[in-house]
Amino acid sequence: MNFCSNCGRTVALLVPDGDNRLRHCCAHCGTIHYENPRLVVGTLPVWENKVLLCRRAIEPRYGFWTLPGGFMENGETVADGAIRETTEEAGARITLGPLYSMIDVMHVHQVHVFYRAELLDLDFAPGTESLEVQLFDEADIPWRDLAFRTVSLTLQRFFEDRTRGSYELYVDKVIPGAHLRPHDPAPADARP
Amino acid sequence: MNFCSNCGRTVALLVPDGDNRLRHCCAHCGTIHYENPRLVVGTLPVWENKVLLCRRAIEPRYGFWTLPGGFMENGETVADGAIRETTEEAGARITLGPLYSMIDVMHVHQVHVFYRAELLDLDFAPGTESLEVQLFDEADIPWRDLAFRTVSLTLQRFFEDRTRGSYELYVDKVIPGAHLRPHDPAPADARP
Repeated sequence: MNFCSNCGRTVALLVPDGDNRLRHCCAHCGTIHYENPRLVVGTLPVWENKVLLCRRAIEPRYGFWTLPGGFMENGETVADGAIRETTEEAGARITLGPLYSMIDVMHVHQVHVFYRAELLDLDFAPGTESLEVQLFDEADIPWRDLAFRTVSLTLQRFFEDRTRGSYELYVDKVIPGAHLRPHDPAPADARP
Repeated sequence: MNFCSNCGRTVALLVPDGDNRLRHCCAHCGTIHYENPRLVVGTLPVWENKVLLCRRAIEPRYGFWTLPGGFMENGETVADGAIRETTEEAGARITLGPLYSMIDVMHVHQVHVFYRAELLDLDFAPGTESLEVQLFDEADIPWRDLAFRTVSLTLQRFFEDRTRGSYELYVDKVIPGAHLRPHDPAPADARP
């Protein structure tokens, strides 16, 4: 941020009075420009024993597989955002289930939230942000070609919970450079 | 938003290629300025049968009572944000419990999230954003003087769950102008 979005003058990085963090501040009009984490919202759509994944047609992680999800928009609920993203990316009709995972991704200022969901039919089709959409059995999940660790963590936990027969809200965080778990996607330098 | 925070030129409200929503776009440098909901994170701190509330020393809702909470910051987890706000507003040391409520407040582009928490001692004290901090029995909760409906909804559900002896994640939304429930705070035009 270089300029004040309100008045167009140059901003400075300062700790405002009564605050304890650096903010982009405009000395001309007094606006303080706060920056806060964004919510990425999506679903884990299930059909019988299979899970629906989308192969990304956009960066980051073009060509990798993900659960349908994206940035929550102003003017919608978290649940409505998750349904909208599922429609946009997978062309899928779902019944939304319970909130299932909430995972902090601090280094990119995001919180990822996934709901469980039931596919209503098999008439799904890739939206403009997906190359393909496909149902996967647990044994066929492309673990090394998943786009994001929040997706692999949510899927891992889902299959564990399903085996156990009991689902619980899953809260976790992703730390850059932390030791990769067996099912983590390939790190960036090992991409195909 | 009037000016591009990147290059300082005037922005226009347009639907970018491949998008379906109006965004503030800069024709000069090409930056698209996305605006997304913010997370407000807090706790419901408990000591024996009592709940800790803070009386607000800042607008909005100066003088009204709230659970400790505030905007999540970049570089922290949701849980760490909730603990930080509890320290800043109530000077309270807590053990964080499970995620307890997630409530959409669409008309102000916010999602409010509260964790249950246990107070570790009684050495709490108002921070700069609080006039006073006090423990309340259920019977003494100042329902008509609560600052926000997300706070009253979370407290209502908490006392119901406590009576039943079982706590579940509570997901809800606040709609402006919707019929007020018995324990809602007084609407703005009825403020003392």
